[in-house]
Amino acid sequence: MENTALEKMSSNKTFEGELIKYKFKSTALGGLEAQFNLYLPPKSQNDKVPVLVYLAGLTCTEDNGAQKGSFLSVASTQGIALLFPDTSPRGAGIEGEDDDWDFGTGAGFYLNATKPKYAKHYNMLTHITVELPQVIKDAGIPIDFTRQSIFGHSMGGHGALTLYLSSSTKQYRSASAFAPISNPTKCPWGKKAFTGYLQGGMEEAQNQYDATHLIARFKEPVHILVDYGTGDQFYKQGQLLPENFLKAARDANYDEFQVRVRSQEGYDHSYYFISTFASDHIHFHANFLKS
Amino acid sequence: MENTALEKMSSNKTFEGELIKYKFKSTALGGLEAQFNLYLPPKSQNDKVPVLVYLAGLTCTEDNGAQKGSFLSVASTQGIALLFPDTSPRGAGIEGEDDDWDFGTGAGFYLNATKPKYAKHYNMLTHITVELPQVIKDAGIPIDFTRQSIFGHSMGGHGALTLYLSSSTKQYRSASAFAPISNPTKCPWGKKAFTGYLQGGMEEAQNQYDATHLIARFKEPVHILVDYGTGDQFYKQGQLLPENFLKAARDANYDEFQVRVRSQEGYDHSYYFISTFASDHIHFHANFLKS
Repeated sequence: MENTALEKMSSNKTFEGELIKYKFKSTALGGLEAQFNLYLPPKSQNDKVPVLVYLAGLTCTEDNGAQKGSFLSVASTQGIALLFPDTSPRGAGIEGEDDDWDFGTGAGFYLNATKPKYAKHYNMLTHITVELPQVIKDAGIPIDFTRQSIFGHSMGGHGALTLYLSSSTKQYRSASAFAPISNPTKCPWGKKAFTGYLQGGMEEAQNQYDATHLIARFKEPVHILVDYGTGDQFYKQGQLLPENFLKAARDANYDEFQVRVRSQEGYDHSYYFISTFASDHIHFHANFLKS
Repeated sequence: MENTALEKMSSNKTFEGELIKYKFKSTALGGLEAQFNLYLPPKSQNDKVPVLVYLAGLTCTEDNGAQKGSFLSVASTQGIALLFPDTSPRGAGIEGEDDDWDFGTGAGFYLNATKPKYAKHYNMLTHITVELPQVIKDAGIPIDFTRQSIFGHSMGGHGALTLYLSSSTKQYRSASAFAPISNPTKCPWGKKAFTGYLQGGMEEAQNQYDATHLIARFKEPVHILVDYGTGDQFYKQGQLLPENFLKAARDANYDEFQVRVRSQEGYDHSYYFISTFASDHIHFHANFLKS
């Protein structure tokens, strides 16, 4: 089955550029219709531009980051496109996929499922790393996919770190995260997702989908920025575990220039936290995307 | 009946300040519970700060501007508080108030209703100009209400312009609006609202609630900024009529330094439009609020 062409659903002029919502029939997601938002800065009217991929958290869609992230202003002035994928396939019709807010619909965890029940549809890893770049290129949209970076929030922070650290093609130049699930094999959200989606359970997860395990054995230079808030209820509940990721990075001899993990006093898990540090993160990526 | 004390419902640290949602039992709204958001910039930890009131559009609540407006960043650095009221009373139990999206709940039009059916509850004018400043002062929150300005979007742009131009106390130092309903007695939204809420119908409306009529007979210096987009569907449908407001202002000898109305090529009615010009508007008000 081939991906069908992109269909433009809406377009909004913003910060002199254009935010466009597209849909298409996704092969990676088993033939389901997938939606995403794409922000094209004004610079794209004359040149191909680099792209920063934003992965949203549990229960979110392609809209949350675009509407609430405060990313577009800085992306406009920096000449960087922003790609906002959805967080899971929608409407796969799998029994139980809509029962919980932290598993199934809205909770794809940016992996390729290996349990037969989910393997046809729950392939957000391939959707984001392979399929979306391909359909956007095929549509003739002026993005230079040799210059990609990735960031995300919570489950999407997990996605950004793991896609960055597991990409055999060095697909992304840098990664950053707001309140990421940093050691998911050690937290309730991750355990539930991995035992649900993966045939190989926690061992498969440790090999491919846990940023703390991945950084421990990574050998190349990295560019990683993480922010989390000390007032974040999920941090306090032990869902995020950024200290584990930081310790693994330092043990692997990554210094603060390669892996920076910042504790932000009093900030919580919301988009009010994200928007506060949005400009920092986009400027961080701009260092690598524009070089 | 007295207003009951403010109850804090939630608080989010953002841009080094704090966004707080409050509720209280509102006398102006006939004893109903009212909610609002208040952003306090970091400067408020040491000093009383000026306040900019944001009035949202049809169907919105106190959350839309706070979440999607991109206002908080600039308000933080400028040391200005932002007050986000709701757009109508909620739960008055009046027959028909929930039938339409452009009348009743979510569509209070920032007036005091005079038809008996609505007069007990639909008093957003008093709620915003009198009651909210009072309950916030009574709670000891460090805002200097001698330094207020006001802005808004669509129906809220109408509210900002009319409250500014009708305040006998010169309550607001400046007014600005995104895509305001600028001559509501001449457009379908306004006619529906005014004939619904006002005993005196269109004549009462022209005297008190139509910015184009108000500016035509205003005598004092003003500070007004208006932006609208040429791609705005409601502009194209004749709901906004900013040209009428501009013409009335020029006919009344207000020049472009006192009344500036900007046509923004290709922008629409959404928060993507608002966020693009958010920084402009807050800096405009800062000129007057900080002097």
